[in-house]
Parts: sequence; structure tokens; C-alpha cells
Amino acid sequence: MIDTATFGARLDAAARARQSVVCVGLDPDLARLPEAVWHGVRSGPAGTARAVERFCNGIIEAVAEHAVAIKPQLAFFEAIGPPALSALERICESARAAGLLVVLDGKRGDIGSTSAAYASAYLAPGVEGSGPRGDALTVNPYLGDDGLEPFVATSRAHGRGLFVLVRTSNPGAADVQDQQLSGGGTVSGRLAALVAELGAGGIGRAGISDVGAVTGATVPGMLPALREAMPNAPFLLPGVGAQGGRVEDLAPAFAPGPAGGLVSASRGIVQAYEQLGGKPEEAARAEASRLRELAWGLTR
Amino acid sequence: MIDTATFGARLDAAARARQSVVCVGLDPDLARLPEAVWHGVRSGPAGTARAVERFCNGIIEAVAEHAVAIKPQLAFFEAIGPPALSALERICESARAAGLLVVLDGKRGDIGSTSAAYASAYLAPGVEGSGPRGDALTVNPYLGDDGLEPFVATSRAHGRGLFVLVRTSNPGAADVQDQQLSGGGTVSGRLAALVAELGAGGIGRAGISDVGAVTGATVPGMLPALREAMPNAPFLLPGVGAQGGRVEDLAPAFAPGPAGGLVSASRGIVQAYEQLGGKPEEAARAEASRLRELAWGLTR
Repeated sequence: MIDTATFGARLDAAARARQSVVCVGLDPDLARLPEAVWHGVRSGPAGTARAVERFCNGIIEAVAEHAVAIKPQLAFFEAIGPPALSALERICESARAAGLLVVLDGKRGDIGSTSAAYASAYLAPGVEGSGPRGDALTVNPYLGDDGLEPFVATSRAHGRGLFVLVRTSNPGAADVQDQQLSGGGTVSGRLAALVAELGAGGIGRAGISDVGAVTGATVPGMLPALREAMPNAPFLLPGVGAQGGRVEDLAPAFAPGPAGGLVSASRGIVQAYEQLGGKPEEAARAEASRLRELAWGLTR
Repeated sequence: MIDTATFGARLDAAARARQSVVCVGLDPDLARLPEAVWHGVRSGPAGTARAVERFCNGIIEAVAEHAVAIKPQLAFFEAIGPPALSALERICESARAAGLLVVLDGKRGDIGSTSAAYASAYLAPGVEGSGPRGDALTVNPYLGDDGLEPFVATSRAHGRGLFVLVRTSNPGAADVQDQQLSGGGTVSGRLAALVAELGAGGIGRAGISDVGAVTGATVPGMLPALREAMPNAPFLLPGVGAQGGRVEDLAPAFAPGPAGGLVSASRGIVQAYEQLGGKPEEAARAEASRLRELAWGLTR
């Protein structure tokens, strides 16, 4: 599982091979899982984990040809319990077997010694049964540079990557991230500079760094400035679909090439059957295919 | 397990009953576990989880009379794998049986729908086997108010609490949290105001809110201003001991009474045997007792 190519080079190669920059978010909402996945499972956390595993594997199989990555949202697995984290370990292996990168969406962040433990949990190779492993992890920068450095060190050592929250897709992001600083710029602008600095040592062959940024698809007007501040960072672009972001507006992210961005949709793909009807897997495939074409057009 | 008393009232009652404001952090560092806990365990995540469970239960038994709460650091359990989260569920039950409150240190935070899943995972009552549950959880506010509100709603509904990161104990906190805003004040000052606002609806009998703040013991000079901005918030005060914070400097936190603060030490207690010699449990008990007396003196 260890790959000594940089994360940026791996992302670039995967996007070009698959001709896709689509990242499919897996945020399994138990109330909305199709009935079929519950067939024959016991009640309790282990049974629920089994149903979620079936559902996620079905989605992975359906979208694999159109996506370059999946992004499991750890919260939804943690809410079920430890058996769901064991299931997620297997789901990540299925995704990798299908040629997809795995971006674990955990938004972790802490003081140095604790960040090192999180990095070891999610970004270092692990033995079987030790939980899900990502090709990349989302991290929260509120604790500053010494809270981020262990994540950079571990991911870089193993050809993995990070997506640091810079400007998130939710309305409340303005409360903190858009605040103007007395020295000029904004909080998110300052963090963008930190991302560029941390990523400078991990820019691989394709000109794409192993330290990326989460930049919400809901605020496309900010993308040109963010791209200027972080010329080599891959952007994880959540918020397309359910949150209102439009793929057409994301072109500035792709200035450095196809690996400049991952267009991430979760509910819009996984719950597409609620809009399109038919089988969940077929609806997810159709929606992933539509998104792929739209987004790939931005990279040329 | 549901308690309709507010978290603040529960914290106040527990601190007065135990005459302690000491919170013992459980950050099990595998390389430093005493040899005895490894006796007879299998290799692999399940065996490691068993050793950690033994160690933590030993610490809980040793410190219970001197502490009011334990604070397991989720990262160290996640780094072992899902069996360690099952072990932590049992460890939390042991702590509650010993009369201790449980503060889960997970520093979670995300957009609204995902924060709701984290809140359900750690702050709502759950079935057996669904993972650790806390009386309180640490949360990260970088995503702003709509990322925090689901945590407030869930904790308030169940008599649980939150500790929102405001000014953390690490050096890099200055990078982001101490930044001056053009409208006056700092980033952490703005978040302090948000904590006060979110907590206003959850101030119980003792005048202590269910929305608290993480305020590092390493920057005691900031405590008076933080206390003024958040008059009813309980402060979680990490950084005593290994990180250099001194208990003697923390008096401003306790202006509203004994439940005004939790003095949190992790390595200083759990690894006290490395300094004091003797059995780990006895060294932890001695150090917890010393810290208890020192800290309780601040509350009078």
C-alpha cells in the first residue's frame, strides 16, 4: 500500500487515467438507505454497519468508472459505532481495488502530539483491523502550524496528502474564516498562506502539492484569490448539489491542471435516486457520469 | 443515563461533592505503557485495545477519589483501531460507575448535518456497542455558528455539555487564534463572544452554562479577559504539567465558583511513575491528590 510517488503526482495520474475530477462523498444517512440493504441484517450496530457497507460498496461499484476518488465522512460511521469503522476499513479497500483514491473526511486537528496520533491513525499504513486508511485526510487548522506539521510529516512519508480547511462551504464560515485582519487580508487568507508554505516541500512531478485546501464550491468568487495564494495546492471543492454550488463556476481551481481540484458531491450522487427514480446504484452512476463530463470540461 | 439537570449543574454538584476540579486526561501512549498491562494479550489491534483498557481502568481506579472527570483523547484510541473504541466505551462506563464525568476530547466540528452526526455519536444516549459516550465533548469552531449549533442542541437535550476551542495551549495557537481583527479584538475573542451567545440558553442553577471553552493553562495572562467575555462558561484548562502550565496561575477561571474550571493534566498524572517511581497507579494517585489540593485552593 505504500506508494513513494507524491500524493500530487498520484492524484494527477489518477485524474488523467480516469478522465475525471469527481469525488463521491459517502455520508450514509440511515433514514434514507434503500430498504434492500437492510435485508437479513440483525438489529444493533453490527447489523447497521453491514447495511451501510452493502450500500457503500454498491455506490462504489456504480460510480467507479466515472469518479477518481471517494470521500467517506467519518462522522456518519462514528455515529453507528466501532463496527462501522471496521466496515469502513473494508469499504476503503474496495474503493482502492476499484482504482479510486480515498479521501477520509474527518476534519481532525489538535496539538502536535495528538495530531501525530491522528496522522498515524488515518495516513500511515496499518495492520488489518486497525480501521480505515486514506490516501488523504481533511484537517482543521484552528490550532495553527504546530498542529498541522505532524499531519504533513506522516502524509509526506507515505505518499499521502492533506486537505486543510481554508474556506468551507457552509454559511457560518463567514463568522470566522472571512473576518478581516488588522494587518490586511482575512483569516482564511492567512491560512491559505500557511497551506502554501507547508506544501512547498511536497510538490511533485505534476506541480501539485501534497498539502491541499478545502475551498467550498458555494463561494466560487473566492477561488481566483485562493488559487493565487496556493498555486500548487489541490482544492477539495465540496458543496456542489445539495448545498447549492455549481460545477460551471469552479474553473479557477483547475488552473494548474486536472489535479487542481476534486469536485465533491455527496447527497447529490448518493441520493440521486430520490430525484431520478430507479435503482440507487443506477441513479448514482448517471449523476456521477453527468458531473464527470461537466467537471472534466473545466480542466481543458 | 439521561439526566435532565443541565451540564453546568451536574458539573457544579460533582465538583462540590468530590471537592475537586481535577480532570485526568487519558492519552495512552503505547510506547510508555507499563509492561504488566501487556501480559497475555494477543498481538494486533484487539490485544492492544485490551492492554490499554487495563491501563486506563487502573488509572481510573487510582485517581477516582481525587478527580471530578476523565478526559480520554480519542486520537490515541482511533490510532489503535475499532477495538480500542469498543474498549473506550467500557472505560467510560467504568469512569461513570466510579462517579466521574467523562469529557471526550475529540475536537470535532463540521458543517451542520455532519456536526449533528458527531453530536449523535458522542453526546446522545446510545445502545451498547455503539462506541464511547461523553458527558461533554470538545469541539472545534473554525466552521462558525452553524457548525456548532447541532452540538449545542444535542448536548442540551441530554444534560451534556461542550468545550469549544477558544484559545488552545500550544505555541502555534498564536498563528490563528491571536490574530488581531480590523474591527478590534482577536479571533479567539470573537469566538469567546460566540461561546457566550450559544451558552446563554443553557445556564443552569449554579450559574454555569452547558457551553464551555477550552482555554489553555499555558496562557494564564489571557484568562481574565476570557472570563469577562464568557462569565458563565466552564473552562477546560489543559496544558498543566508536560506543556508547562502552572495551576497557581489559573484562579481567574474560578470566578463563578468551583465549576468554573476543569484543571486538566494528562501525561503529568498518567506518566507520573516515570518521575516518582513505584507503581503507575500509586504515582498517578499521588500526583492527582497533589494537583487536587493545589487546584481546589483556587476555588475558595
